[in-house]
Amino acid sequence: GHPEIELALVELYRETGEARYLNLATFFIDQRGSGRMRGYGAFGAEYHQDRVPVRQATVVEGHAVRQLYLTAGVTDLYLETGEAALMAAMERLWRDLTAHKMHVTAGFGARFTGEAFGEAYELPADRCYCETCASIAAMMWNWRMLLATGEPRYADLLERSLYNGFLSGVSLDGRHYFYVNPLQSRGGIERPEWYGCACCPPNVMRQIALVVHYAATCDAGGVQIHQYMPTTIRTDGASGPQLAVRVETDYPWSGRVRAVVEETGGPAWTLALRIPAWCGAATLKVNGAEAQSAAGGQYATIQRTWRAGDVVELDIPMAPVFIEPNPRVDAIRDSLCIQRGPVLYCLEQVDQPELDLLDVRVASDALMSAEWRDDLLDGVVTVQLPAYGLEMGDWEDQLYLPADKRPQPAHRVLLTAVPYYAWANREPGAMRMWIPVFRGSPP
Amino acid sequence: GHPEIELALVELYRETGEARYLNLATFFIDQRGSGRMRGYGAFGAEYHQDRVPVRQATVVEGHAVRQLYLTAGVTDLYLETGEAALMAAMERLWRDLTAHKMHVTAGFGARFTGEAFGEAYELPADRCYCETCASIAAMMWNWRMLLATGEPRYADLLERSLYNGFLSGVSLDGRHYFYVNPLQSRGGIERPEWYGCACCPPNVMRQIALVVHYAATCDAGGVQIHQYMPTTIRTDGASGPQLAVRVETDYPWSGRVRAVVEETGGPAWTLALRIPAWCGAATLKVNGAEAQSAAGGQYATIQRTWRAGDVVELDIPMAPVFIEPNPRVDAIRDSLCIQRGPVLYCLEQVDQPELDLLDVRVASDALMSAEWRDDLLDGVVTVQLPAYGLEMGDWEDQLYLPADKRPQPAHRVLLTAVPYYAWANREPGAMRMWIPVFRGSPP
Repeated sequence: GHPEIELALVELYRETGEARYLNLATFFIDQRGSGRMRGYGAFGAEYHQDRVPVRQATVVEGHAVRQLYLTAGVTDLYLETGEAALMAAMERLWRDLTAHKMHVTAGFGARFTGEAFGEAYELPADRCYCETCASIAAMMWNWRMLLATGEPRYADLLERSLYNGFLSGVSLDGRHYFYVNPLQSRGGIERPEWYGCACCPPNVMRQIALVVHYAATCDAGGVQIHQYMPTTIRTDGASGPQLAVRVETDYPWSGRVRAVVEETGGPAWTLALRIPAWCGAATLKVNGAEAQSAAGGQYATIQRTWRAGDVVELDIPMAPVFIEPNPRVDAIRDSLCIQRGPVLYCLEQVDQPELDLLDVRVASDALMSAEWRDDLLDGVVTVQLPAYGLEMGDWEDQLYLPADKRPQPAHRVLLTAVPYYAWANREPGAMRMWIPVFRGSPP
Repeated sequence: GHPEIELALVELYRETGEARYLNLATFFIDQRGSGRMRGYGAFGAEYHQDRVPVRQATVVEGHAVRQLYLTAGVTDLYLETGEAALMAAMERLWRDLTAHKMHVTAGFGARFTGEAFGEAYELPADRCYCETCASIAAMMWNWRMLLATGEPRYADLLERSLYNGFLSGVSLDGRHYFYVNPLQSRGGIERPEWYGCACCPPNVMRQIALVVHYAATCDAGGVQIHQYMPTTIRTDGASGPQLAVRVETDYPWSGRVRAVVEETGGPAWTLALRIPAWCGAATLKVNGAEAQSAAGGQYATIQRTWRAGDVVELDIPMAPVFIEPNPRVDAIRDSLCIQRGPVLYCLEQVDQPELDLLDVRVASDALMSAEWRDDLLDGVVTVQLPAYGLEMGDWEDQLYLPADKRPQPAHRVLLTAVPYYAWANREPGAMRMWIPVFRGSPP
């Protein structure tokens, strides 16, 4: 089975206080790297994260879901023991994950073979695995890393999975599932209703039920809001100030978040608001006072003696932007992806019926506009942008030609991009997130 | 088993003249598309080329080696029966193969899963399959298509496999084999000595022994030289002129080919020489007379009353050129590959010790020079070219950033490229055939 027992045992220890559960979790984690699981099936020890001991690991490897459940469990163990070697290993693995082995959707697992991580920078858009459960496991791990460190990058990454690599795993009607979440389809990919190995349906249900718990944390100093959603955050005062804060927002469609203090009392406490790294900077107003800038990739903190009725207004800019990949990523070279807020976009064939998605090209200075569409995909913001459609010219019957800078004719087109998570909910057809850069002369 | 019995039965029919062997080959071929093999393992009917009847097939699909053995057998059947529907199907499949599903090496099979063809334009460089036996099967098929039609494109493609996708399957010492022939390695790939499923070693041996038979054909009108190698072509006069032509060349290192008529007699006959499509045009001299241009992608034909001692000199230009991929191929977008004559080149880490091959970039107007290196890889022509090495800059810890046209520092480097077939014969290390285009400002 997957290494899920470790985090479950730590949780059981927390509930019961019985050390034997923590000891057993420690035992299982300490066994990793002994090579005992070598030879299982056709896969090597790395498939099981059994190649090197956990504390010596430097890379995420093997089966992606297994790897990420294991790191979640190890982080849980660290949360109880504070053992520095565990956290050092987790930070190494997190860097390897995010600097080398993550799809832009925060989907994980480059290879079908072994449902596994690939090599550094091996991140194909079409034949990636990006299992729904791997994004769930990554959210579980990032949540624990956030609890362990308070660093906003973990909440940022959790958010990236939530709105992209995870959410694409389920259809809008909640009844069809992707096991595998490609970033490009040349057509013919739809969510089935069920799988022989049906881990996604219950895991997706559990995860969606859990989302509200990712909204905020509290400590002795106050409350930290990590994910923006309409909810009321209420503390019982057992380990910090007793308070209730109502959050009003239609994030991620809008970047405006209103936090209204409903109940408070006693001394000053700190309200911390995550300013996502992707936004650069946001603005913040308290009780309608002059707006202040708050840098992205940090928590904006407001410490004061709060009174019921105090209002904090956060405004996170939501203009669509192009994202480019690390130049070492071969599979999506010279391509751009559209992001608006935390939501990544894709092109679906159905929205550009006249254009083969293999032929679309975009200029990196294309002006994008966003539009709320109540009628589309249960309500989404779409992104429109001017672009180009290449014509095949000499390439109709050829895969390879001498590079002679042949001019390739192109025509202007207007693209409509939709949130990636919502793809494959209409008629089946091609889809792509990464749009190649136009390298010709404008027609 | 793979569909090898069909071509073997046709051959047995040719040897024995017994119709039952041809009938049995026909029977097996006619069974395809009945879906009888559906459900074998986890793969669908297309894995076995059993989805549609052979005469209705429009695409190559499923297991690449199986598909290409089958087409070889079907072409053999056509050669005996002349049934137009078979040839029409073969031409459709050949176009699909070469316009959509062929690696530049004339390696075949984009996917590990099912050792299979991928979708049109799905041609990854790193995780392709390109099984050695698939290139062998393609050579077998192209040889039969050449016999059936006399069209030089089949000899061109046979040559492309021969010097690239096939020849990479065996080490220079003849004792180590690639089952899978990637076009890019990030390191760690070497030819093992043996495989559990060891089809490559005997198949490679058989194919190398067969190469000389691909050199030429003869018919009532004369002799056709398809592949250039030092040999003497001798006909017995049973079905055309009796003659002997000695071919002198060190092709593919040089493009100079000398054909000396050693024996001849009687009426005029035609010497046909394949002018490869990749060369654009070659020049031709008869007995030292003024050189004439001969267009690539055709057979240059010389009809005359030959006399012993007549000499034809063919000069095929061999300057290294860059090849670019069809813009629909996502995996190698904005990259160039080096070709010199029929030989494709790659970069190996060992030849550029200071440069990570993930960071190499090339300008499409880079001036290339070729050099014979007696001391290297059993003797090869290497290609040198100026290029750039990117520095990581902001990208050290990031996979995705907002596209802001950040200038990425680069430094000048001098690259040495070696023939692809000879890679992985020195110390193991990274390799790449497709070199990304430099898009920055020269340093």
